[in-house]
Amino acid sequence: MDEIINHDHKRGSRTGVPESILAEPKRLVELKDALIASMKRNNDVLITRILESQLATVSKIVRENNWKIKFDAYKRTAIVFNNIIPEIKQLGVAIFSAGTSDRYIVEEIKLCLRYFGWSSKSYQDVGVAGIHRMREALEEMDKVSEFRIACLIVVAGQDGALFPVVAGQTELPVIAVPAPVGYGMGSGGKAALYSALQACAPGIGVVNIENGFGAAALASKILNQIDK
Amino acid sequence: MDEIINHDHKRGSRTGVPESILAEPKRLVELKDALIASMKRNNDVLITRILESQLATVSKIVRENNWKIKFDAYKRTAIVFNNIIPEIKQLGVAIFSAGTSDRYIVEEIKLCLRYFGWSSKSYQDVGVAGIHRMREALEEMDKVSEFRIACLIVVAGQDGALFPVVAGQTELPVIAVPAPVGYGMGSGGKAALYSALQACAPGIGVVNIENGFGAAALASKILNQIDK
Amino acid sequence: MDEIINHDHKRGSRTGVPESILAEPKRLVELKDALIASMKRNNDVLITRILESQLATVSKIVRENNWKIKFDAYKRTAIVFNNIIPEIKQLGVAIFSAGTSDRYIVEEIKLCLRYFGWSSKSYQDVGVAGIHRMREALEEMDKVSEFRIACLIVVAGQDGALFPVVAGQTELPVIAVPAPVGYGMGSGGKAALYSALQACAPGIGVVNIENGFGAAALASKILNQIDK
Amino acid sequence: MDEIINHDHKRGSRTGVPESILAEPKRLVELKDALIASMKRNNDVLITRILESQLATVSKIVRENNWKIKFDAYKRTAIVFNNIIPEIKQLGVAIFSAGTSDRYIVEEIKLCLRYFGWSSKSYQDVGVAGIHRMREALEEMDKVSEFRIACLIVVAGQDGALFPVVAGQTELPVIAVPAPVGYGMGSGGKAALYSALQACAPGIGVVNIENGFGAAALASKILNQIDK
Amino acid sequence: MDEIINHDHKRGSRTGVPESILAEPKRLVELKDALIASMKRNNDVLITRILESQLATVSKIVRENNWKIKFDAYKRTAIVFNNIIPEIKQLGVAIFSAGTSDRYIVEEIKLCLRYFGWSSKSYQDVGVAGIHRMREALEEMDKVSEFRIACLIVVAGQDGALFPVVAGQTELPVIAVPAPVGYGMGSGGKAALYSALQACAPGIGVVNIENGFGAAALASKILNQIDK
Amino acid sequence: MDEIINHDHKRGSRTGVPESILAEPKRLVELKDALIASMKRNNDVLITRILESQLATVSKIVRENNWKIKFDAYKRTAIVFNNIIPEIKQLGVAIFSAGTSDRYIVEEIKLCLRYFGWSSKSYQDVGVAGIHRMREALEEMDKVSEFRIACLIVVAGQDGALFPVVAGQTELPVIAVPAPVGYGMGSGGKAALYSALQACAPGIGVVNIENGFGAAALASKILNQIDK
Amino acid sequence: MDEIINHDHKRGSRTGVPESILAEPKRLVELKDALIASMKRNNDVLITRILESQLATVSKIVRENNWKIKFDAYKRTAIVFNNIIPEIKQLGVAIFSAGTSDRYIVEEIKLCLRYFGWSSKSYQDVGVAGIHRMREALEEMDKVSEFRIACLIVVAGQDGALFPVVAGQTELPVIAVPAPVGYGMGSGGKAALYSALQACAPGIGVVNIENGFGAAALASKILNQIDK
Amino acid sequence: MDEIINHDHKRGSRTGVPESILAEPKRLVELKDALIASMKRNNDVLITRILESQLATVSKIVRENNWKIKFDAYKRTAIVFNNIIPEIKQLGVAIFSAGTSDRYIVEEIKLCLRYFGWSSKSYQDVGVAGIHRMREALEEMDKVSEFRIACLIVVAGQDGALFPVVAGQTELPVIAVPAPVGYGMGSGGKAALYSALQACAPGIGVVNIENGFGAAALASKILNQIDK
Repeated sequence: MDEIINHDHKRGSRTGVPESILAEPKRLVELKDALIASMKRNNDVLITRILESQLATVSKIVRENNWKIKFDAYKRTAIVFNNIIPEIKQLGVAIFSAGTSDRYIVEEIKLCLRYFGWSSKSYQDVGVAGIHRMREALEEMDKVSEFRIACLIVVAGQDGALFPVVAGQTELPVIAVPAPVGYGMGSGGKAALYSALQACAPGIGVVNIENGFGAAALASKILNQIDK
Repeated sequence: MDEIINHDHKRGSRTGVPESILAEPKRLVELKDALIASMKRNNDVLITRILESQLATVSKIVRENNWKIKFDAYKRTAIVFNNIIPEIKQLGVAIFSAGTSDRYIVEEIKLCLRYFGWSSKSYQDVGVAGIHRMREALEEMDKVSEFRIACLIVVAGQDGALFPVVAGQTELPVIAVPAPVGYGMGSGGKAALYSALQACAPGIGVVNIENGFGAAALASKILNQIDK
Repeated sequence: MDEIINHDHKRGSRTGVPESILAEPKRLVELKDALIASMKRNNDVLITRILESQLATVSKIVRENNWKIKFDAYKRTAIVFNNIIPEIKQLGVAIFSAGTSDRYIVEEIKLCLRYFGWSSKSYQDVGVAGIHRMREALEEMDKVSEFRIACLIVVAGQDGALFPVVAGQTELPVIAVPAPVGYGMGSGGKAALYSALQACAPGIGVVNIENGFGAAALASKILNQIDK
Repeated sequence: MDEIINHDHKRGSRTGVPESILAEPKRLVELKDALIASMKRNNDVLITRILESQLATVSKIVRENNWKIKFDAYKRTAIVFNNIIPEIKQLGVAIFSAGTSDRYIVEEIKLCLRYFGWSSKSYQDVGVAGIHRMREALEEMDKVSEFRIACLIVVAGQDGALFPVVAGQTELPVIAVPAPVGYGMGSGGKAALYSALQACAPGIGVVNIENGFGAAALASKILNQIDK
Repeated sequence: MDEIINHDHKRGSRTGVPESILAEPKRLVELKDALIASMKRNNDVLITRILESQLATVSKIVRENNWKIKFDAYKRTAIVFNNIIPEIKQLGVAIFSAGTSDRYIVEEIKLCLRYFGWSSKSYQDVGVAGIHRMREALEEMDKVSEFRIACLIVVAGQDGALFPVVAGQTELPVIAVPAPVGYGMGSGGKAALYSALQACAPGIGVVNIENGFGAAALASKILNQIDK
Repeated sequence: MDEIINHDHKRGSRTGVPESILAEPKRLVELKDALIASMKRNNDVLITRILESQLATVSKIVRENNWKIKFDAYKRTAIVFNNIIPEIKQLGVAIFSAGTSDRYIVEEIKLCLRYFGWSSKSYQDVGVAGIHRMREALEEMDKVSEFRIACLIVVAGQDGALFPVVAGQTELPVIAVPAPVGYGMGSGGKAALYSALQACAPGIGVVNIENGFGAAALASKILNQIDK
Repeated sequence: MDEIINHDHKRGSRTGVPESILAEPKRLVELKDALIASMKRNNDVLITRILESQLATVSKIVRENNWKIKFDAYKRTAIVFNNIIPEIKQLGVAIFSAGTSDRYIVEEIKLCLRYFGWSSKSYQDVGVAGIHRMREALEEMDKVSEFRIACLIVVAGQDGALFPVVAGQTELPVIAVPAPVGYGMGSGGKAALYSALQACAPGIGVVNIENGFGAAALASKILNQIDK
Repeated sequence: MDEIINHDHKRGSRTGVPESILAEPKRLVELKDALIASMKRNNDVLITRILESQLATVSKIVRENNWKIKFDAYKRTAIVFNNIIPEIKQLGVAIFSAGTSDRYIVEEIKLCLRYFGWSSKSYQDVGVAGIHRMREALEEMDKVSEFRIACLIVVAGQDGALFPVVAGQTELPVIAVPAPVGYGMGSGGKAALYSALQACAPGIGVVNIENGFGAAALASKILNQIDK
């Protein structure tokens, strides 16, 4: 009953998206092993979808190894690192979200982008129930001067109507992240995902429900091409 | 093997929506029997979802009985009547539709409303891919002077984003009719129906996919209450 | 990582349904912020789908700000207000529900209608297993004299058979609220929702499963048109 | 590549439901073989779900063999027999159906029951959109004197509301046959099947969508127990 | 905000299945009210799907009112009664179940049948993985002499293969109760329900997943017809 | 707009299952190109799921190139070859099928096995509605002497009950092929697939609905291991 | 019954993706009107998903107006134009497809990209059943010198395994187009779509099943950002 | 209310897979009874899917009876035995798994195989995001000399892409075990199951999601044929 476990420590150089740790499905011992193995290979690592029940373990390992850690606002995502985090580039991403309940996904996206080395700016509560809010956000976005916005990530639950509405108003490539907000038929992000896939305005790249990390990774790959 | 068949010829007086004939699932002989029985009881009758293969039969029966018939633009809906159709009242419904492919449902709604005795005005191709079109339609609608608009029916396929966007901009009760436009996951009107049910803007009454007749019936019941 | 949060404080005047707070998906701090922001803008606010774990927080904020609060029977819905709640108009809604287990939705609807300024009267346990109960309720309803009933909201789980049965017996526009009562295939309100969408009696506006707030909002928009 | 084909010619004596031939999925040659093999073993055989494209073949085989054939009204079901069909017993089944479009299933049930040796009486178009029709049918049914009604088969499409409504009004065991009538979400008989399974009135045995033969077989097994 | 609550205390005499209480979706106060109201009208009442968290409340009410109570083996079903339970008739039902994990449904069925006044005998662990067990049970069943078995209820989860296998071997009407046993695709009783609806052996009346009460009610209605 | 098309002509030696051509989704020109390219590389090729509309084209290409062709009984599967087909080995597969309508899948399996070089023997119409037929087939199978049976493929539609019943009676590895026979809920092979996945008897390898080729390929890989 | 139809002729300048015509759901007269209206506003227009039954109409209108037309290899997509099509830029897209049956989607993508002004190069039949083909294609791709490849579109049906395999090997942003190739459970592109959404390699933007146009539009928006 | 419980103690000799106990759905008393009954009949027994809440009970029974017990690494699977476990044969199975989170299924498979008397060797974390890992594992596998590998079990969640990729590279029969790893649409193992069923590389036998025991049983039946 021999076992061989393989790691993929060259993924970063091969794809531009470094290996990260998906905490949620892991038992504590597996999470610990993964974290230690990662930090042995690299200077920093991203952890996503940390459960509340996993937080203490993560913190303890970080403390014991004298690493540093940077959480997002909901402590669901974290960057573990050794010395200092690299500076942010002058290129970035705008994030639109439909309502307050989507915010934990926005925070995940922002920290992931930070890890990949990009700037970001978020516009929350711009859902279509009051369409003027989206318009104002688009105008506001045009005035951002700290960095060039080259990609727009939209987070929306319920009807997901924000996806086509925004995509119909911008030249930027749009990445849609359906959020599991809403109840009844089509809940759990299903209606929003369907809207994203069926969007009447073209040019939207869809990621799975709640997959903020995936959205940030796609944005990062796009920005990498611009930055080349 | 005796059979007893029951008709419900008092439904109009009881519910305000007269009995109508759903043609589609009926064989030709059943359709003929239903039409003759209806015209024996009343002065006129509405037929919905007429298949192309049923058109000749309907026309023939109308001709043989010296009735008159009024079709919608797609010959999917028809009013069969004896003398003259009653005048239209000074109260009515606005209909918004997202794209060209939804038009056959708009035509069904308009003829059903006509049968129930109400005015209507339709604004087509106002989908959210270009949000300004909806805004212009809303402004245009405010200037209608021939009749008072007291209800707004929205027809949309694909992402169904028009439902919440419109509902967030109007005081009128909104009736959502999902259309089976689109392909891939969420097609057949499913994504649009989910968006209608999950709409972030409240105050929307949803009917089933393609159910233009049902939307007109609900609008008619609402207008009846206003007109009382 | 700048953030801009947008509020939609003119929604009431634009749509006739004032902004309300959906408590369920919000964390405590988000709920608190939303409540304080709302009360800063208006004299009162409606909170729906309050979780038991959120109750203490809501009560504490109300106490600290010297606001008043009015709950429904299940403490799932609440109106937070400053001085006094406006008088109820002489126009209203009847609510039919199929069984005892639907009652929490009936209570949500009643409080929402109260908030929007309308009267209501509920008839519970009138499910189709004993069809005479529905008949008696319809007769009873005709004798209501305190206010004019202009809309009928029906709440039903399991088979949802009450929707078409009632709609076939009344001139009133009917709003169907599927309830997540029942187990096995079609449970969670799915069978009831399907019955509402497939109802053989026309003139029904469907809202999503458990969406009592949405039903009340649609009824309110209809009554607003009558009251104009 | 040897082949062995097995027939089950004792099924009738074992289960009380004789072997029958499901025509629909069979190619013409398979249908022919099955029919000839059956008639070699027995005096008569039931064929269900005959496609229009199979009719000529069936008729030709019957003619060539000097058998007799009795079709239902839609030529979807047939009894092929040699001499004479056995007399009908003084025990039987009532069949309720919701609308005209369900009639082909009613006819299938009636012929199947006839084959199994039972009487039947059908009440059509008694759907819940006009609940008085069902009441009248129930009263009418009580006056039937030619045979004792010991079982009630209900056929309904769309919302399937007739299932619980009838089951709540009768002492008879009820068999529900969902019909694929209706369009949009829940169509194809799905909503009706869900209503049957979720029925708030207990004592309903459900068969699959369109399965008139199965309903007749269950009724027959029940009547066999009474007749013992 | 007046409320009218309707009870249906004549359901027993109308349908042969007395009103019972579905405990599961009821809050404690609603359960208490229902129980007291029922016992005011009748000498006994059946309670089904009692949650563990409801048990103490039920017991307390029974004690306080000096009623008696009889539970099934899993305390999920109970008969509450005043004096003495009526004698059991000489007619009954056989129950087959596929595995040990289905047993709680078998116990529910047995107590419901007891309440309706019928005998029963169960054969457990006769699943098709070892087909000889079912054969032995069928032979064993033929030797039962205390009462006449006139109906066979089959309980099965996972593949639900026991339904068609048994139905192909017996003259008795078969009632299929899918059980939520199994994991992965088709779990929760879905595969078993589909097998019951698709059964290649005809003459099966299907009830919803876990609906032991419904199966007993249908059996009772059938036995009532035999016993007439 | 350059194009590069890659072929995988070493797949046979790598996996033991030579490359074959899935005809169904291909246009005529694509089918022709694939066939010619395959025959250029090898001495023979298997074509599966040939549509009736593709038959003439296939025959024409074979004729023009002086190849030979061997069809299955339904002309859905074919082996195209140059000289002579290799001899069959003394190892093989038994195939059980539930009913007549599954036969086209049985024929596909038999021809695929023939192509892979294995013997086979089929037992048809052994469905569980009459369980004795399966028992007799199992006994019959034990007497086969021309070749050793080392694998059992079961084809079944509707309830798919044959899968667990057979698997519970044999030492052989069982491969389940769900067939799209049946109508209503669970039709299209869904119920049968679920039964295969949920089978209470372990040791079943499931392939997709109608995938006779896949079943034969798995059997071939197993026999290859035995034959090594 | 007045009608107002709105066009969105500024969409190109606003989003970078000019308005195009989805032919499939349109009746012939609607398609004609749309084409003429588009050409009145612009110098060229893209038509996608042209049905065979619409081809003659399209060709006739083009001829009558002395326009020019350029079809893809399957005549499903076309560019209608007046004078000459603008030159292609030195930036482009690589397209990988899993099998021959996906080719019609590849051709759609190529023509759409051509219309948007970008170069493309396709690598077909590189599915994962022979993983070396994908590796070779990736190496081949690195040697392309005519234009810089900045985005990779992957088209795959059946298991959709090509999406994560490719995404794990490239720095380029990947756009996944699920293809409706395959049969049985998960067919119609569902399994491929699920694989794309669940891909274990991050950085994939998913479009709906068969949505080659959407993939090209997203690629175009990305290239526009690079080209800025 | 008599009860007869049947055991199937000859299943091992009949099918080659001895009876085992599925712990999960059993209450503690049922689990205890099953364990004691099994050990009365045999020298050892396999228990699968043990819940944490059942562990103490299992351990206690084992202790009280002086049996021995061998758990897998996650204490989800156990062999209970009397004296000593039989030696392992020189034939075995390789197990590939895509990621760390699948490991609990790998451990279940290994212990089941151990119980059936076979060797195994696992290669973990060889998912397709880094395709070289799978290649290395295949090469590594060829060098195993302790036993002959005759079957390959693949465990994968999310996109399940490992199934076709591996099956396209090996002569061994492949058994696919979808794992419930991943979130959003297609989660719970659904996407992985669909990929397994739709795999473009043939020769894969699929078992249900998480069904490690079933995979081991199928492998065991295959090895039994080789070992004959």
